[in-house]
Amino acid sequence: MIQIPLAKTIMKQQSPTSNHANIYFFGEYVAEDCEKLLGNKGASLAQMVRLGLPVPPGFTVTAQTCAKFINQDALDGLFQEVSTAMAMLGQKTGKIFGGSRNPLLISVRSGAAVSMPGMMDTILNIGLNDEIVSEMLKEPTNARFVNNSYCRLIRMFASIVMQAESAFLAALGDANDGDVVSYKKAFKNVFGIDFPQDVNAQLQQAIVAVLRSWNNERAIAYRQLNKITDDALYTALNIQAMVFGNLSATSGSGVLFSRNPNNGKDELYGEFILRAQGEDIVAGAATPNSISQLQQFFPDIFKQLQDIAKVLENHYGDMQDVEFTFENGKLWILQARSGKRSAVAAVQIAYDLFSANLITREKLLSLVKLAAIEQILHPIIDPACDYVPIAKGLPASPGAACGHISLDRNQAIDWAAAGRKVILVCAETTADDVAGMAAAEGIVTAVGGMTSHAAVVARGMGKPCITAANIEVNLKENEINAGGLILKVGEVITINGSTGEIIKGRLPLQESESPASLNLLLVEADLVAKLVVRANCETAEDAALAKNFGAKGIGLCRTEHMFFSDDRIDIMREMILSKDNTKKQQALYRLQRFQQEDFEKLFIAMQGMPVTVRLLDPPLHEFLPLPGQNLARLSSVLDVKEPMLHAMLDECTEKNPMLGHRGCRLAITTPEIYAMQIKALFSAWLSVNQVTLSKPILEIMIPFVMDVNEIKIVKELTSQLASNFFTQFDIKIPYKLGVMIELPRAALLADMIAPGVDFLSFGTNDLTQATLGISRDDAKKFLPIYLEKGILTHDPFISLDQLGVGELIKTAIVKARATNPLIKIGICGEHGGDPKSIEFFSAIGGVDYVSCSPYRVQVARLAAAKAVLQNSI
Amino acid sequence: MIQIPLAKTIMKQQSPTSNHANIYFFGEYVAEDCEKLLGNKGASLAQMVRLGLPVPPGFTVTAQTCAKFINQDALDGLFQEVSTAMAMLGQKTGKIFGGSRNPLLISVRSGAAVSMPGMMDTILNIGLNDEIVSEMLKEPTNARFVNNSYCRLIRMFASIVMQAESAFLAALGDANDGDVVSYKKAFKNVFGIDFPQDVNAQLQQAIVAVLRSWNNERAIAYRQLNKITDDALYTALNIQAMVFGNLSATSGSGVLFSRNPNNGKDELYGEFILRAQGEDIVAGAATPNSISQLQQFFPDIFKQLQDIAKVLENHYGDMQDVEFTFENGKLWILQARSGKRSAVAAVQIAYDLFSANLITREKLLSLVKLAAIEQILHPIIDPACDYVPIAKGLPASPGAACGHISLDRNQAIDWAAAGRKVILVCAETTADDVAGMAAAEGIVTAVGGMTSHAAVVARGMGKPCITAANIEVNLKENEINAGGLILKVGEVITINGSTGEIIKGRLPLQESESPASLNLLLVEADLVAKLVVRANCETAEDAALAKNFGAKGIGLCRTEHMFFSDDRIDIMREMILSKDNTKKQQALYRLQRFQQEDFEKLFIAMQGMPVTVRLLDPPLHEFLPLPGQNLARLSSVLDVKEPMLHAMLDECTEKNPMLGHRGCRLAITTPEIYAMQIKALFSAWLSVNQVTLSKPILEIMIPFVMDVNEIKIVKELTSQLASNFFTQFDIKIPYKLGVMIELPRAALLADMIAPGVDFLSFGTNDLTQATLGISRDDAKKFLPIYLEKGILTHDPFISLDQLGVGELIKTAIVKARATNPLIKIGICGEHGGDPKSIEFFSAIGGVDYVSCSPYRVQVARLAAAKAVLQNSI
Repeated sequence: MIQIPLAKTIMKQQSPTSNHANIYFFGEYVAEDCEKLLGNKGASLAQMVRLGLPVPPGFTVTAQTCAKFINQDALDGLFQEVSTAMAMLGQKTGKIFGGSRNPLLISVRSGAAVSMPGMMDTILNIGLNDEIVSEMLKEPTNARFVNNSYCRLIRMFASIVMQAESAFLAALGDANDGDVVSYKKAFKNVFGIDFPQDVNAQLQQAIVAVLRSWNNERAIAYRQLNKITDDALYTALNIQAMVFGNLSATSGSGVLFSRNPNNGKDELYGEFILRAQGEDIVAGAATPNSISQLQQFFPDIFKQLQDIAKVLENHYGDMQDVEFTFENGKLWILQARSGKRSAVAAVQIAYDLFSANLITREKLLSLVKLAAIEQILHPIIDPACDYVPIAKGLPASPGAACGHISLDRNQAIDWAAAGRKVILVCAETTADDVAGMAAAEGIVTAVGGMTSHAAVVARGMGKPCITAANIEVNLKENEINAGGLILKVGEVITINGSTGEIIKGRLPLQESESPASLNLLLVEADLVAKLVVRANCETAEDAALAKNFGAKGIGLCRTEHMFFSDDRIDIMREMILSKDNTKKQQALYRLQRFQQEDFEKLFIAMQGMPVTVRLLDPPLHEFLPLPGQNLARLSSVLDVKEPMLHAMLDECTEKNPMLGHRGCRLAITTPEIYAMQIKALFSAWLSVNQVTLSKPILEIMIPFVMDVNEIKIVKELTSQLASNFFTQFDIKIPYKLGVMIELPRAALLADMIAPGVDFLSFGTNDLTQATLGISRDDAKKFLPIYLEKGILTHDPFISLDQLGVGELIKTAIVKARATNPLIKIGICGEHGGDPKSIEFFSAIGGVDYVSCSPYRVQVARLAAAKAVLQNSI
Repeated sequence: MIQIPLAKTIMKQQSPTSNHANIYFFGEYVAEDCEKLLGNKGASLAQMVRLGLPVPPGFTVTAQTCAKFINQDALDGLFQEVSTAMAMLGQKTGKIFGGSRNPLLISVRSGAAVSMPGMMDTILNIGLNDEIVSEMLKEPTNARFVNNSYCRLIRMFASIVMQAESAFLAALGDANDGDVVSYKKAFKNVFGIDFPQDVNAQLQQAIVAVLRSWNNERAIAYRQLNKITDDALYTALNIQAMVFGNLSATSGSGVLFSRNPNNGKDELYGEFILRAQGEDIVAGAATPNSISQLQQFFPDIFKQLQDIAKVLENHYGDMQDVEFTFENGKLWILQARSGKRSAVAAVQIAYDLFSANLITREKLLSLVKLAAIEQILHPIIDPACDYVPIAKGLPASPGAACGHISLDRNQAIDWAAAGRKVILVCAETTADDVAGMAAAEGIVTAVGGMTSHAAVVARGMGKPCITAANIEVNLKENEINAGGLILKVGEVITINGSTGEIIKGRLPLQESESPASLNLLLVEADLVAKLVVRANCETAEDAALAKNFGAKGIGLCRTEHMFFSDDRIDIMREMILSKDNTKKQQALYRLQRFQQEDFEKLFIAMQGMPVTVRLLDPPLHEFLPLPGQNLARLSSVLDVKEPMLHAMLDECTEKNPMLGHRGCRLAITTPEIYAMQIKALFSAWLSVNQVTLSKPILEIMIPFVMDVNEIKIVKELTSQLASNFFTQFDIKIPYKLGVMIELPRAALLADMIAPGVDFLSFGTNDLTQATLGISRDDAKKFLPIYLEKGILTHDPFISLDQLGVGELIKTAIVKARATNPLIKIGICGEHGGDPKSIEFFSAIGGVDYVSCSPYRVQVARLAAAKAVLQNSI
């Protein structure tokens, strides 16, 4: 292990700088905010010097100096300081700047506190002139290296200092990159002067040019695009002795990662090229060798790199990406920074560092981005793959899938049963399509938004989905039309639900594998988070999944989802449409049996955790056939003639079903449905209790409440049924009763609502629809344009509208807590799984839990922790 | 004029009472709260005595005494006080209580501070016994009168004191009401005792019985029903010397009104019967004579009554309903109270009293109920008419109408053109029906609520309308079915839009006539009101009407209404559906010409007053044909084949159009429509200005705003168009730009919205829909049940939901004024014409104006004044 020398003390003596220095030698100044003064690169070099790493010596011109130059065109004695510093650099390297023997060559690189990759300029090889070059060429083996280095300097000078790259290149013609005579001639032709032979003049002009590059067009555009303000930052310059990996057979350059960036293993990972400079690796000029060959042929350098990697990791608390060069067998570290890594590796590395006590819990949680967790959970298209999408839509459910196009849900089911992978493509999906969706690998719809039926169901299933795709579905021709390109049913497409792209043909997919360390990491996240995460589930499978992902209960069971399967929908329809009361009651009883079974499974799956069951919410006509559907079967089941049936269905339709006869309004007009559900809940509780001896934690939720009196009625109904049931079976079933806040009025009346109930849960989907007056089913025609034009900064159905809906929620929480301080408050809309929204819910205080689809639970848990730590998400 | 004697001083000396008196002689005690102590009747008698009117003497037992009796069963020396008082009453009348000569007869009447008509008991003729009767019968002409009076006493005693009326009546058999022997026998048979001969015992038992009647079943039920609490009030008793209008040929009783209650003229109005008591007039036993006959035959009494009427009017500041009796030519006043009157009379009388300086402005405004104004404006069914409705619905637009049933708008137009009166009956109306509605006398729809298309349009037209009627419209059979009763097209019905009743056949209607005094009265109202009243108008006719009704401007011009006429709808459809841009532009230009004409007319009609024009609000598909409509004509106009047209129409439909692609969302996606409207506005302004030299006051309103950025875009569009137009015509047109607040989010963001605009106007219809999550088109299935069960206290589309929507509005106003203190704030939803809502808007402060349909303007003006005065509405 390399010891950290007392660099500060040593360097201070060498420092030429006063209190108002323009310059700091690497390692001389390392303070909290040194990035601001020295830039990222300068700060990193300084840090590495202090860590005792072999960094080519040099010094940093501060960002303050740049600021002064840009704003006041003043250099404040900079050149004087540089001149002194260059003399000291000569001492440190044992080389002479401008000396014909043992010449010191240097680089001038920009390096701001904010990353602006490639936007500003760099000049290498400063310090070469005719005399020095001719002296160096006396060593004939150097010829190619020396000529090439001089040409590179001349060209950089022409383009960056003289700012006339194209003119210079034109004058150069096809001269090769070692033809010094041609380069010099071109320079003279274009600029009318000889290439400067005074190395100090080279250096001064280079410094000015690189400082000036802060304001080149590229850099200005980049800063505008990334909303980086000029005033605070500016760039620092790093002036550093050159080292040459291309000098000899014992020279080379490489890049290494301190751990394996694909899987996170604790092993050096990287590559190098002999006789090459760092740029050559990036440019892909030669095929690099694996780092294991370095171990084989230069074991000493490999050992040094191993040690350095650990020093850097320990210092920065993260896996490092290190650029190195060795010149005649001597190792130099040129750069170190956090390395990019795969999602799996990110989790593994972070947790390993945390386990080894090298990083804090906060750092652990900051090292894993939420996107990484999403990536782990879903297949992705091989990142190495280039493709051009044939159509785009909304990224409604993440992940990638390939399959044969099917436009028909039954066909999709048949094909899937026969082992053929299917992408189900529809205009839009309805409840009838759920089985087809389950059979498909992925879903594409031509209409609908991020929270359309297709999107919500697909996310619930963890399947990729694209909605509002710019395709036309032509059922007559059995084909889809993507902007003129016709794809027939059966053709293969690949869809990327994370980006909304549809690609023709089959692309290679990568299955991400959830590492064990993810669970351990999320346990740490739970210790930090203020919000508990529950899941929205209707089936035992989903519940098991949710529990596996660490959900602390079911926050929303949408009971209506339980009525859509083929064996139930007819009974539901019979119950709704029967004029014969006996038939109606029979249908209700059969539905109750089904519901009881469903609830039993949920209770068993979630033992020891709360299960919040929402009573029936949608308008009853959602269970009825759509206009144009075949009514023959229903007609015979109900024993009602088709024309009569049509009339009955017509009577049920609503102009604005979103604002229609739904939610607890059903309890007021047709209490028997809620009664059936409540009885099913108690029966399920009893039967689970009898079989398993456990006591399920039951929470009954009333949807679409707008007034206190609605709650009173449902509460009265519930306690009446409870009392009957408890008497009948001589048992007392504990249950909580709560309200779903989906309407602005309910939020505004939260102080009146809260005292009568045990919990409130914000249904943020519907609350968003009502507050913004946007039907998500109809938003396709304007919402994309609103986002495009920046009228709304984001889709309010994906990330909570904090100004409007958020304000309502805040008000409601304050009001509710004022009259019922102990009330439990949750969020169960789609926003419960959205990190930005989770951050908001965590920040406003008063929210106890969020509930989201099972596949979002892990992301939500990490997001809830990050929200507390105010990590970037 | 009768002088008011110093009754207080005189009576005080006669008073037997201490500080804790149970008794006050009439006129002895008249304080602010004397009704509480003396009851209404006692207070009125006391007042009349103090006014020097000839009131039969008597005294009042206080309500406190009753309270003590009811609660503690204590009489606290009451009988002692009564006994003393009776002696004094004897002195005052010159008669003797219990004396066989010149006997004093008295009545004991209840009289609480709260009116409970007929609920409590009264006993008359106390003081008669066998001895006195036999003495009186010595004057043979008295026989019938004396026997009848004695029988009446015995019967009242049996029923009220002994509480056994039915048993007594049964025992009585068919004995006639002068058969004293039978009455006495029956009394003895039933109760086992003789009818009490001791007049003091009679009196004491009567007092106790009448006090006790506070708690009889009738009275308790009445108080519960009317939410009158026992504790504060109780009843007082009035013990008064009897006078007898049935005594002789110069005796009689009558009722008079101090002014004509039908038309308000300042003349005595009333009737009397000779030889009769007051009860006989009420019972209609004989045909009364007109009061003019009194003038003819008893000019002296008539003159006295004239004077007394004026004294009472002057004192009470209101037209009086006076009961009088004359006994042997001597006039007695028994009762005086405010008289009931017709709507027209109410206005006339109030204004006459005010003009004569007899009442204050506040009193003037309190004397006219809002319902009276509504009645004035609409025909009513003759109140004398009894009827049984065949069906009921919502009272969607007030007034009554008769006509022949038509189910077809074109038929309605044809029939009306041929002079046949029509009631248009439909399932519901659409924009296409407007001409048919205009041709009809009234409208009935089977669906839709109080703010459905039919309701809103009918109210705008001032036509009676009933919505959600429990009828079925059978177009196939050309009939309607009202609960089994079939009415064919062409049959006559009468509808009462004020009650929602549909009656078979033709009932007599009364046209109410708006008196000139109404306008004068409303000018006084305007001086008091904090809210200015504007009108919602789209046509010059409506604007003229609104101005005539005193509107101070147009608060809402719904421009979409201007596109529905036959000559425009096709152009609109062409504009919406054309794929050919030239055609689209041509259609837009033609629409612009139409709009310009409309705006010119409005500007001219409203000269000098602001005209707020709302840019297009509904989704464009509202202008397109409904599914199933004949597309042939449109197909040829657009030159698009029908199947293609069908597909285009399908693409336009929305699941929840209320929350769809509408309002300023259109301005974002298709700015050319708003641009056309804005150009039409400027062109109209210019042309009106050039012709009339006036400067119309233009206010442009942006509908359905949810975000500040939408406003920015429309504002930018407007100022760009303005700048072009102003340059082109070298003119500067002043205009204001404002926002319609229809969505909860807009209300919540009012502080951000306000600084950029000149005014905000709350569109309370849509705000109610969004806040409560109720589509008014679909509310029929549950809202009536909500009202019936008391879940909601009132229909939130009729009277503002103050808890929810009201809270949002309050918040928005505070926020808006915080960032733009001078912003103008209005209300332009239907609630702008609802008195309860106006009261709320006035009370919360910060609202500058309300806007309502022209026919509501007068009601709104009075309501706005009443809101300030906190008059009951």
